[in-house]
Amino acid sequence: MADLPTRYFWELTQPEIKQQLANNPLVIFPAGSVEQHGPHLPTGTDIFAANVISHSVAERMDGLVLPGGPLGVTPMHMPFEGTITLTPETYMRVVKETCVSTARHGAKYLLILNWHEGNANPLAIAAEQLHREYDMTVLTVQACYVAAELYGDDCGGLTHGGEIEALAVLAYRPDLVHLDRIDYSSDLELGHKMDHLRRTRAYQPVLTDVRSIAPTGWYGSPEHATVEKGLRMLDDIADTIAAEAKAIFAQLDEVQGGVAEVKHLQQVR
Amino acid sequence: MADLPTRYFWELTQPEIKQQLANNPLVIFPAGSVEQHGPHLPTGTDIFAANVISHSVAERMDGLVLPGGPLGVTPMHMPFEGTITLTPETYMRVVKETCVSTARHGAKYLLILNWHEGNANPLAIAAEQLHREYDMTVLTVQACYVAAELYGDDCGGLTHGGEIEALAVLAYRPDLVHLDRIDYSSDLELGHKMDHLRRTRAYQPVLTDVRSIAPTGWYGSPEHATVEKGLRMLDDIADTIAAEAKAIFAQLDEVQGGVAEVKHLQQVR
Amino acid sequence: MADLPTRYFWELTQPEIKQQLANNPLVIFPAGSVEQHGPHLPTGTDIFAANVISHSVAERMDGLVLPGGPLGVTPMHMPFEGTITLTPETYMRVVKETCVSTARHGAKYLLILNWHEGNANPLAIAAEQLHREYDMTVLTVQACYVAAELYGDDCGGLTHGGEIEALAVLAYRPDLVHLDRIDYSSDLELGHKMDHLRRTRAYQPVLTDVRSIAPTGWYGSPEHATVEKGLRMLDDIADTIAAEAKAIFAQLDEVQGGVAEVKHLQQVR
Amino acid sequence: MADLPTRYFWELTQPEIKQQLANNPLVIFPAGSVEQHGPHLPTGTDIFAANVISHSVAERMDGLVLPGGPLGVTPMHMPFEGTITLTPETYMRVVKETCVSTARHGAKYLLILNWHEGNANPLAIAAEQLHREYDMTVLTVQACYVAAELYGDDCGGLTHGGEIEALAVLAYRPDLVHLDRIDYSSDLELGHKMDHLRRTRAYQPVLTDVRSIAPTGWYGSPEHATVEKGLRMLDDIADTIAAEAKAIFAQLDEVQGGVAEVKHLQQVR
Amino acid sequence: MADLPTRYFWELTQPEIKQQLANNPLVIFPAGSVEQHGPHLPTGTDIFAANVISHSVAERMDGLVLPGGPLGVTPMHMPFEGTITLTPETYMRVVKETCVSTARHGAKYLLILNWHEGNANPLAIAAEQLHREYDMTVLTVQACYVAAELYGDDCGGLTHGGEIEALAVLAYRPDLVHLDRIDYSSDLELGHKMDHLRRTRAYQPVLTDVRSIAPTGWYGSPEHATVEKGLRMLDDIADTIAAEAKAIFAQLDEVQGGVAEVKHLQQVR
Amino acid sequence: MADLPTRYFWELTQPEIKQQLANNPLVIFPAGSVEQHGPHLPTGTDIFAANVISHSVAERMDGLVLPGGPLGVTPMHMPFEGTITLTPETYMRVVKETCVSTARHGAKYLLILNWHEGNANPLAIAAEQLHREYDMTVLTVQACYVAAELYGDDCGGLTHGGEIEALAVLAYRPDLVHLDRIDYSSDLELGHKMDHLRRTRAYQPVLTDVRSIAPTGWYGSPEHATVEKGLRMLDDIADTIAAEAKAIFAQLDEVQGGVAEVKHLQQVR
Repeated sequence: MADLPTRYFWELTQPEIKQQLANNPLVIFPAGSVEQHGPHLPTGTDIFAANVISHSVAERMDGLVLPGGPLGVTPMHMPFEGTITLTPETYMRVVKETCVSTARHGAKYLLILNWHEGNANPLAIAAEQLHREYDMTVLTVQACYVAAELYGDDCGGLTHGGEIEALAVLAYRPDLVHLDRIDYSSDLELGHKMDHLRRTRAYQPVLTDVRSIAPTGWYGSPEHATVEKGLRMLDDIADTIAAEAKAIFAQLDEVQGGVAEVKHLQQVR
Repeated sequence: MADLPTRYFWELTQPEIKQQLANNPLVIFPAGSVEQHGPHLPTGTDIFAANVISHSVAERMDGLVLPGGPLGVTPMHMPFEGTITLTPETYMRVVKETCVSTARHGAKYLLILNWHEGNANPLAIAAEQLHREYDMTVLTVQACYVAAELYGDDCGGLTHGGEIEALAVLAYRPDLVHLDRIDYSSDLELGHKMDHLRRTRAYQPVLTDVRSIAPTGWYGSPEHATVEKGLRMLDDIADTIAAEAKAIFAQLDEVQGGVAEVKHLQQVR
Repeated sequence: MADLPTRYFWELTQPEIKQQLANNPLVIFPAGSVEQHGPHLPTGTDIFAANVISHSVAERMDGLVLPGGPLGVTPMHMPFEGTITLTPETYMRVVKETCVSTARHGAKYLLILNWHEGNANPLAIAAEQLHREYDMTVLTVQACYVAAELYGDDCGGLTHGGEIEALAVLAYRPDLVHLDRIDYSSDLELGHKMDHLRRTRAYQPVLTDVRSIAPTGWYGSPEHATVEKGLRMLDDIADTIAAEAKAIFAQLDEVQGGVAEVKHLQQVR
Repeated sequence: MADLPTRYFWELTQPEIKQQLANNPLVIFPAGSVEQHGPHLPTGTDIFAANVISHSVAERMDGLVLPGGPLGVTPMHMPFEGTITLTPETYMRVVKETCVSTARHGAKYLLILNWHEGNANPLAIAAEQLHREYDMTVLTVQACYVAAELYGDDCGGLTHGGEIEALAVLAYRPDLVHLDRIDYSSDLELGHKMDHLRRTRAYQPVLTDVRSIAPTGWYGSPEHATVEKGLRMLDDIADTIAAEAKAIFAQLDEVQGGVAEVKHLQQVR
Repeated sequence: MADLPTRYFWELTQPEIKQQLANNPLVIFPAGSVEQHGPHLPTGTDIFAANVISHSVAERMDGLVLPGGPLGVTPMHMPFEGTITLTPETYMRVVKETCVSTARHGAKYLLILNWHEGNANPLAIAAEQLHREYDMTVLTVQACYVAAELYGDDCGGLTHGGEIEALAVLAYRPDLVHLDRIDYSSDLELGHKMDHLRRTRAYQPVLTDVRSIAPTGWYGSPEHATVEKGLRMLDDIADTIAAEAKAIFAQLDEVQGGVAEVKHLQQVR
Repeated sequence: MADLPTRYFWELTQPEIKQQLANNPLVIFPAGSVEQHGPHLPTGTDIFAANVISHSVAERMDGLVLPGGPLGVTPMHMPFEGTITLTPETYMRVVKETCVSTARHGAKYLLILNWHEGNANPLAIAAEQLHREYDMTVLTVQACYVAAELYGDDCGGLTHGGEIEALAVLAYRPDLVHLDRIDYSSDLELGHKMDHLRRTRAYQPVLTDVRSIAPTGWYGSPEHATVEKGLRMLDDIADTIAAEAKAIFAQLDEVQGGVAEVKHLQQVR
């Protein structure tokens, strides 16, 4: 069904979705957030990024993009208006109930594509349960880290409100990016230092207020972002994720053949 | 701030939202669903209807449209692919946490605008708690019933997948309506009879499977729906709701002045 | 077993109940509340009304009256002593666990007979789950609205503490009605206006404090209520509900034959 | 207010309750169950016993009898029709929400009067929280054990369906006791042996099915129970409990003066 | 496998546990607490007592000691540093999830051995569910009461911080007992009086602050406790519990044969 | 109080803990698991490692080691006997209630020291809430990754049951390590490959059954582990963590000064 007019689940009709799930039972759950992003980016930046990348990946992998947002877990940004946060428990429920609904209709492979770091822990718990309890083959991709690996050097790293985020929105809805309003970026050095502190594998201090990292709520240098570069970044990220995800799903298929005993044990429960 | 470029919260920047909440602390929560709507309408029909009407009401009342969807409570439609359902408990959590986030940033008046009947009971419970526990002044509008009152006679009543729903989507995204694919409508008479059974004030039988009402999942006669009529319906509904809501909010302001004692009692809790 | 001495479950012995469930697997859940009802009516008014009407309906339909009360969801009346309220979540649990217990012993048809408006939303959610998860055929009747339809014109409408409520208690326990203590009714006009506001199908403002409607906690004109009229009202309501409920249960039996697929889908869960 | 016409909360009017709580802020929560009790006793036996004793105690201590039932936690009796059980969690919620409602209206002393052993553990947890979180002074009385101490020797011990239980119902509603239907009592010796096993202080085996104790669901010798003896037992139990409870409440008042520090600590939470 | 080097589950290897569960599917769950115990005993006193007695019982009954602690439910001791408390709900979850894990690996007999009174109610609820839902044969032993019966006369009764508790720790880790630091025991008479009040079968006042019983947090006369006496007490308690538990498990096996019908009923759920 | 005889909370007396919390309000929560570790290591390996490292860190930082275990979240290892798992929700509750208890007694700095990867996500959610809701300054250290960084090259990486884990237990209780029983290690290459798959920052496939990684349950080459090397590793890890943690706590103190506004916002909740 190369001729699906869109990969967004909610824009398709029932017969289209039924056919597509039969063709390829792959669904993509975009995970983002609605939260303040400075004076130049919309509050929906994170979910817009997750949606547009998910769609590009869905085209490459022949999948459907679930209505996975728009909200996420972001108490960190609540000091600023424009932020809406779910609790981790509610977010886990939404993720699970959404994916289980499609599993009941035939979805078997689930790619969770996340752009918002605050979602990572609840997503991991939900992903584990979707695999164990509902038998989905699940891969979570932190798309923002993929972006950082590909474009971080060129764009001053992955920062809240910086060039990488501006590019993602430019690739989705250029009219929502206001480069002419860029103002009051927080100190870049502090931001990078504190962000690095949070992203260590071994040491994870709790930094619960974004102002510890960026007193003004954002930092970065998105001045030179363009639509063209945004679209290029989008393509590069989607190519990378699609290739990697295909390889990992293949590996999972291979190793998860022999889990019959676990399932038997669970029935004792 | 008559010059806000949009009323959708997630398309605005942090300073725009901050300013708007200070100007007029009114937020609108659009409640809909993603569920099968036959071969001619997108699965997002209900949330698209809720969003587009909310936006028109927001323009008339100077409010903001919250990211209130896209999902709802719709186990009734699960027999058909294309449906995603939340449990009532999860839905109540999402509604409450979304609205509380904005209450913490200044929102005081909450208009819940619902297009999907399955949401009505959990919305009512959430609305009550948002008022009692978080002090918001809350009004829920069943926009689909307003549509039925205004356009039901002309459009063959409010039916799942019928002309009123087609008009709502035409007013939002005409490209998502496929009038050329209209097919296999269920028996109109059965549909009306069973729908009427469910909408009585005094007798409420549990009809949990849409196929009891419409064996093919939908019924109606949307053949003659047009964009022009859709936009007219949108305007009429928005005008009606805005006028009525203003009057009711004014009444609520008047009568809810004297509840100091209740609040005092609650502190004992 | 036309000779059951009573229809109240808790007054019967185990062999009587076993036999009756085998004869006709119909149970009636009376839903009411314990809350302030002015100086002339007992706090148990709502549950007394629900019980006595349920019993009359049970006689007509050959069913059993479950121990369905006495409490309900009534934060609205907490400003006045004499009110006891459950949270919606607790109430839903009580309703479900009560009915599931009897389903395990053979009950198949469930008539929820409600006299208290605050219970309506949680009852609807519970009813839906009792049907979907436990396979009961469920009908909820808002008995207070049936009363209003039959006796509203004659009795000054359905008001909190008014004639209709007095009649219901007179039909149950005349000694608990103190017509000689009728005093400080709130303004009738305000009451009707605000009550009407709450009972619109399309617009539902949250009025969480009864004093918005009736500053003194009640309003109405129950002066002329008599036991005789109460018994007549009881008969009329029970006749109407029994006839209507029989017809609806027959319709449900007819349309809910073909839900095998839904049940299959649920097993995937 | 020695002239209150009844001590049952739900039979009184709002002004009567308000006045009584001001006079003496003591409420009694009767805890029982609705469950099979053989061919001769009603399923409501336990809650009838709890209610009638609570009322007699309320008269002696000048208190109010809350609507504390009728249901309890009794999975043990589910093998027989006529039983309705709540889960421990739901029961704890009902107990707490009921008592908190009255605490908000002034109740300070809470006497939980229990006749059903299956309620004991959840009642204890709820009682602890009502004291700690809502500041009530709480005493739980296992009234069935008081009965056993006073009348056990004379009545063949406290057995399910035996003379003590028959006497309690005779004191409440003689018409519900059918001594002429006494039949198929289980082996007395087995019953006593197994019951004794369950009521040891140090060793508590889980006996979750009443048929382990009494294969027919009940055992005992209630043949000689009379209304007169029932009323005498009621008086004796009420006298004993009222005297003991007064003494204990006095002791609690004395020792619980100095808990200011605990409360301070809790605020840190 | 008389040659298991230890009975502590967490000190054994996977093959040892697998073999032992196959040999004898008996597990012992030690229930205790970490809470202040005066100046002379460690805060782990209760869990140390539960562990060491469980181990001696496990040797006698050929069972395994589960990792059942160290925490318990002890809000009563929170006024003093050194106390850590779980809520009843969390504790029930821990107990159930621990035991279910081993049930899935073959454990069938569960002996809950408790030394801390605050655990008794949640343990009873969890035990009931482990039997009903997971089919374990369950016996709870209040080991502290067994100790009181055997050594209470000789040791001044069972008191918080008194000789019985000192003996239990001496039998486990003599280096953690500091008899030279015994100081500020509360009044013995008050302690005994209040403790007695709490341990009545029929009357259970809520005493939620240990200072009501012992203003200094402990009372007793542990001056003459010795390791030798501790070891003797340990042996006596373990002998008694092992003998009694064997007899009770045998009785349970006998009477719980015929519960097929209950299980069938539960499937209806 | 350099002369505390131990840093284990449960081995100290109430006055010692009170004094220590006053001296330095730092507590360390050791997070581990009880799960199968092959034929040569005890099932308690992970919690033993967490405890012994926590104690060494506590000595260096003058803190207390909380009773933080022994259980963790490890459904992955349930296919093998010897494993006990908590659900993520229960584990989060245990972590929070334990730490809140000490916060109420004065603890302000919380170091969570984790050795079991399955705990990482629930720990992160709990840590965030302990900071936000209870005001603790929180740092989580994945001690197993610190070990891998320091000793991975020398020990064949961090593998389940490999040399690093054997060293950790040797440093704690050499008698529980059975190097003579080393047998049936899974294929090292597969193990490393799959483990690497799980530990990528950007791609996180769900591998829920340890047998996907190691069909026999473990892999590695612990043959040459010695007590001496274990103690050296323990010292090196503790030195590294203590130094790093001191620096991070200092940074947190610096940046978290200005969060007054967040706290104010939370009160609106």
